[in-house]
Amino acid sequence: MTEFIPAGTRYVELPSPFVFKRGGELRGGRMAYETWGRLNAAGDNAILILTGLSPNAHAASHADNPEAGWWEAMLGPGKPIDTARWFVICVNSLGSCKGSSGPASINPGTGQPWRLDFPELSIEDGARAAHAVVRALGIERLACVIGCSMGGMAALAYLLLHPGSARSHINVSGSARALPFSIAIRSLQREAIRLDPNWNGGHYDEQRYPETGMRIARKLGVVTYRSAMEWDGRFGRVKLDSECREDDPFGLEFEVERYLEGHARRFARYFDPNCYLYLSRSMDWFDVAEYGEGDVMKGLAKIRVERALSIGVETDILFPLQQQEQVAEGLRAGGADSEFLPLPSPQGHDAFLVDIARFGPAIERFLTRIYAEQRG
Amino acid sequence: MTEFIPAGTRYVELPSPFVFKRGGELRGGRMAYETWGRLNAAGDNAILILTGLSPNAHAASHADNPEAGWWEAMLGPGKPIDTARWFVICVNSLGSCKGSSGPASINPGTGQPWRLDFPELSIEDGARAAHAVVRALGIERLACVIGCSMGGMAALAYLLLHPGSARSHINVSGSARALPFSIAIRSLQREAIRLDPNWNGGHYDEQRYPETGMRIARKLGVVTYRSAMEWDGRFGRVKLDSECREDDPFGLEFEVERYLEGHARRFARYFDPNCYLYLSRSMDWFDVAEYGEGDVMKGLAKIRVERALSIGVETDILFPLQQQEQVAEGLRAGGADSEFLPLPSPQGHDAFLVDIARFGPAIERFLTRIYAEQRG
Repeated sequence: MTEFIPAGTRYVELPSPFVFKRGGELRGGRMAYETWGRLNAAGDNAILILTGLSPNAHAASHADNPEAGWWEAMLGPGKPIDTARWFVICVNSLGSCKGSSGPASINPGTGQPWRLDFPELSIEDGARAAHAVVRALGIERLACVIGCSMGGMAALAYLLLHPGSARSHINVSGSARALPFSIAIRSLQREAIRLDPNWNGGHYDEQRYPETGMRIARKLGVVTYRSAMEWDGRFGRVKLDSECREDDPFGLEFEVERYLEGHARRFARYFDPNCYLYLSRSMDWFDVAEYGEGDVMKGLAKIRVERALSIGVETDILFPLQQQEQVAEGLRAGGADSEFLPLPSPQGHDAFLVDIARFGPAIERFLTRIYAEQRG
Repeated sequence: MTEFIPAGTRYVELPSPFVFKRGGELRGGRMAYETWGRLNAAGDNAILILTGLSPNAHAASHADNPEAGWWEAMLGPGKPIDTARWFVICVNSLGSCKGSSGPASINPGTGQPWRLDFPELSIEDGARAAHAVVRALGIERLACVIGCSMGGMAALAYLLLHPGSARSHINVSGSARALPFSIAIRSLQREAIRLDPNWNGGHYDEQRYPETGMRIARKLGVVTYRSAMEWDGRFGRVKLDSECREDDPFGLEFEVERYLEGHARRFARYFDPNCYLYLSRSMDWFDVAEYGEGDVMKGLAKIRVERALSIGVETDILFPLQQQEQVAEGLRAGGADSEFLPLPSPQGHDAFLVDIARFGPAIERFLTRIYAEQRG
């Protein structure tokens, strides 16, 4: 999958061995990351971004890679995360396939890809690996850790495992634990991949590749990342022109089907199936209650940041709004000046990627405030 | 699939040829049905029940088959649909595999199962076939047509195609047209079946059977038939005992996964995959706007019934509540005394099958009223 690592990606070697939460270890592991802006002399203007399941570290364009990143409208000089002001780091998650060590990378012990011999991955392992990057860059304390979706879970783990490591936190469409509806969806996505005969217990290659399973998993993902309300307005019951239809009685007929098909085609060969399984499962396992004697709120209340913002949208069915409210309340219970900000975006879980008109000002306001406080 | 036709099922021969809306015809077709109660001398106490995608005609136990039916708590002497009072007919949908003609039944022209040579099925074809059963039983005008889910669509088609055929109508978690989220879910279910190599263009048998595709389709169905809210309370993050877990790193771990697995196992071999494809597609095609020059409300307003009730639940993501509201408003525009009744059931689309405490009294009240008016 090396062809999908963005130009300008940089690397940090992980401590070796890097021991995993559930057992197992990695020797010679590495983390991919990119940065924007400059670390100031005091070293107190750094922001870490932790991503959702599939993005790489290329959140936005920069001198070494002018291609637009996955959060291009959010990140850059004069943008909501203003890189004229902040030194911003985005890491590719541990277990992913965009440069960081994961099931698709080479196990130095065998010279072959790890595949399912990669240690069982927890959200906490990803958080510790991201912390290693921050420390390698000479940063003692982040101004802010921002986590989106799965990254929202990873950010909470980061703060729990590394007390004092950040002044503030923005949790974007995240949650403190996976709930059964989301577990069911992800379990079904994983099953679609595993049931594909070409998955073959993780031993596929480019020729025999679980394309079918990945297509189903991605389509189910897209269905749950967006919202019915948005699609009513966007697609309605519009049908494809007859010349676009396949000669197949059950082939594509509605615009919404073509939209899903486009997503599935782009994704199936772009993300490694074993990495997908590992990262997906890590979300199901994550539960802040483990840090609070079985109580999520107690776990969240152990986090110490000065200021926090938890944002979500009403139409999110995968990380529903009450989960962002819970995060805000839990951080408040821990002493943070903590704000819960529900947004009326129609785009569902993915809104933070596309509804910059709503998410941008919210994030900008928060960061402007902590910048002013810091400059005091 | 003949072993899955309930005992006591009766049959009506369809007019031959039976011509389909989109072309094609059936010779020697038949409809399976069951009845409860007795038709009175005036012939004005008959109720027709049109089902969702998968049920058979066995809505409740009766003398010829004491086994509990799929709406057992709703239907029987003294129950909300009181068979001491009403003569109730439930049909197995045209295109299904529980006795009525469908892709799994024998094409008399070839002596082989129809498979994909079965004519393209529309909701309207099912409505016309149900009407043929009602007429064969000597009923000129129904006291009420009740349609649940897909049957709610079929009931609207029944009333549009057969003006004056019913005094009243209860639409249960139905809709006047499919919206893109529901189309996307069903398209994905069909794709999972079609991508299973054992589906083989519809030419499977008991040995080479698209079990994988059916499992995925069913699990996705169950996920969308229920609600996240219900599952939070019901499953939470409860895990299986370790002895119940498989020796598989991605195997079942949470209770919610076992629940889905149980549903998938029960369903995969119980319903014919080609029939599933046909019925599923017919829902995507259905659009009352075709009867109203492109306007759903105008189409609904063409329906003439004296009294109507449209019921739904707030947690339904597949047939969302605004669709039941639209049905109620459209029927009111057509002159009916039409009530929209939103219920707070937590069980999602499937609530009408399980939340009898809420649905029962609503249906009973409506039927009691039309009974009194009729006797009045």
